[in-house]
Amino acid sequence: MARRIALLSDFGTSGWYVAAMKGVIMQLAPRAQLLDITHDIPPQDLVAGAWTLAEAVRWLPPQTIVVAVVDPGVGTSRHLLAARADQHWVIGPDNGLLALVLDRASRRSIVRLENRRGWLPTVSGTFHGRDIMAPVAARLALGRSLAWFGPSVTTYERLAWPVPIHRANRIEGRVMILDHFGNAITNLPGAMVRRPRQRLFVHRKRVRVVSSYEEGLPGELIAMIGSSGLLECAVRNGSAAALHQIQRGDRVSIVA
Amino acid sequence: MARRIALLSDFGTSGWYVAAMKGVIMQLAPRAQLLDITHDIPPQDLVAGAWTLAEAVRWLPPQTIVVAVVDPGVGTSRHLLAARADQHWVIGPDNGLLALVLDRASRRSIVRLENRRGWLPTVSGTFHGRDIMAPVAARLALGRSLAWFGPSVTTYERLAWPVPIHRANRIEGRVMILDHFGNAITNLPGAMVRRPRQRLFVHRKRVRVVSSYEEGLPGELIAMIGSSGLLECAVRNGSAAALHQIQRGDRVSIVA
Amino acid sequence: MARRIALLSDFGTSGWYVAAMKGVIMQLAPRAQLLDITHDIPPQDLVAGAWTLAEAVRWLPPQTIVVAVVDPGVGTSRHLLAARADQHWVIGPDNGLLALVLDRASRRSIVRLENRRGWLPTVSGTFHGRDIMAPVAARLALGRSLAWFGPSVTTYERLAWPVPIHRANRIEGRVMILDHFGNAITNLPGAMVRRPRQRLFVHRKRVRVVSSYEEGLPGELIAMIGSSGLLECAVRNGSAAALHQIQRGDRVSIVA
Repeated sequence: MARRIALLSDFGTSGWYVAAMKGVIMQLAPRAQLLDITHDIPPQDLVAGAWTLAEAVRWLPPQTIVVAVVDPGVGTSRHLLAARADQHWVIGPDNGLLALVLDRASRRSIVRLENRRGWLPTVSGTFHGRDIMAPVAARLALGRSLAWFGPSVTTYERLAWPVPIHRANRIEGRVMILDHFGNAITNLPGAMVRRPRQRLFVHRKRVRVVSSYEEGLPGELIAMIGSSGLLECAVRNGSAAALHQIQRGDRVSIVA
Repeated sequence: MARRIALLSDFGTSGWYVAAMKGVIMQLAPRAQLLDITHDIPPQDLVAGAWTLAEAVRWLPPQTIVVAVVDPGVGTSRHLLAARADQHWVIGPDNGLLALVLDRASRRSIVRLENRRGWLPTVSGTFHGRDIMAPVAARLALGRSLAWFGPSVTTYERLAWPVPIHRANRIEGRVMILDHFGNAITNLPGAMVRRPRQRLFVHRKRVRVVSSYEEGLPGELIAMIGSSGLLECAVRNGSAAALHQIQRGDRVSIVA
Repeated sequence: MARRIALLSDFGTSGWYVAAMKGVIMQLAPRAQLLDITHDIPPQDLVAGAWTLAEAVRWLPPQTIVVAVVDPGVGTSRHLLAARADQHWVIGPDNGLLALVLDRASRRSIVRLENRRGWLPTVSGTFHGRDIMAPVAARLALGRSLAWFGPSVTTYERLAWPVPIHRANRIEGRVMILDHFGNAITNLPGAMVRRPRQRLFVHRKRVRVVSSYEEGLPGELIAMIGSSGLLECAVRNGSAAALHQIQRGDRVSIVA
């Protein structure tokens, strides 16, 4: 069985860590097709990792196995998980990295990686991506059942995701992530901003809601429904993050 | 039919946008082979995008389908194109990004992407790379004819490419692009600098024309015929751009 | 025969150079499977290139052909080599880049690339990765014997690798490379630090040897056996390089 294995990590692309993981997979499952999601998650940034993973998984073909490694607790007693989340598989540390994918799944089954026969014979203290998660992904691609890798579990570490808060005359959201262009993606579903006479505020500053980048004036902070279906703040041909000092966690309010 | 699909964009490699495009392609055309040209075109930089695209296409195998997404006008009325350019296919916004590839082709046929059956069922306002261009590439790889995607057009947006200017006793060129090493690639064909007693000037400073990097003295700005067949300015084991403040658009003159 | 071809270079990922090399390979050996090790070796940095290459090769499947291009002497009389190193093949300039892989191999055979029929018909003065090394890799993948490419040689350029120095009451090592996380990997094998009552010093400062990142206090410089089996210095959830001003070449001493 030839399956797709997608990789996400905070390893960067300047070293040999990604190649080592791929080499392990290719030796065990030579016919698996490898895909990089990204290796440029900021080091140890679980929120960026969890968000990027969940957004990518939405678009990957069914049956793709995704290995996610943002693992500040490597070598400690934190557990490693493999899970079925609807039509995809995810493998990663139980530190919140998988939380958003698992939260979103309508059907999920999760195991803790405990069967050492699924790992490399020697396991380092600092690189479980290569020594445990890569061989588990390869063996899953070869057809091993989830149950073979370890005992079933029903809970997993969560991250403190802010959700939109509904108040008397307004809805308060947050900037969840800044993308490569400096767009600030919020946790406010696009459907929330479709009523007339609403006003949008970022940093107490009123922001126009438009339908394409090009409607923005030079340097103007605008808001629109982005490609994830969420409200995002942007600057036409520029970086909202840089030009308007927007950061992750900033409050974005819809006022009736 | 299994075809190669190559991708070029300004999406960067830190997020999920590239994976989303690839996921769409893989779902529609699972046997297509994917290749990244680059995703590190500076945001909205059409000149860098067009140049990089045209240089890459020269070396890609015949029949490769290239999707190019540098698209500041996404969501506006700008058109999207798919084209045959000699032995390759290119897909991208009609904003000049495809101009250099199309200019260089001796045979070309171009259509405007209008057949919505070639797109994803739902199209966002901000990510036509994923929602329109990726599925069009996949369907082209599966054997759809160009004509199926929309009406034929004969014109396309051009960029203002500077061309070498011939004056009484000199030829004036321009720095077209700076590469990763800080080499400054000009629009002057190598054949122009092969006559004896010519002198080359950059920033009014005389520059030696040599035949390998190693002939340069430490820190010296030198010029040579680069791997694209064009005159380029360089510093041995260093960055011409950084050490000599060379920028895109700078004038480079050959004086008889 | 379909073989794997892995690429390592200092070309960066923002331009068309990597795509040009891949295009050449794909045209000659369409069924070869391509793998990127990294293209982010710092420009002209042979030490980082040699180290990254050697660490990656340890994990790549047998029979992988690795093309390594960090080539400040391109266009001069430096030679190009292709070699068998145990179960892998390596191709690159004879400038020390291949030295560590070849040093580590228990069996090796090396040829100098001289048979111009193995190259592209036209060879530029600045891009032998595309014009010589890529077509040689493709032809090796297609089954050409090493001997076809040129005469056998027995020596190759070496780099001045520091080795651990044993003194009366201590072993002196060096920081060999800094990874993406800012961990400082030394040339001291992990086995050297396993005796009780040893003390470790970096910059004359005593450093605790621990067994996982998480044992470190916030900001504390710690040392542990890393994923390459070597002693490395780290900071829990931080960069040892940035927080403790550690650089390549710094001395690390084990005192009895």
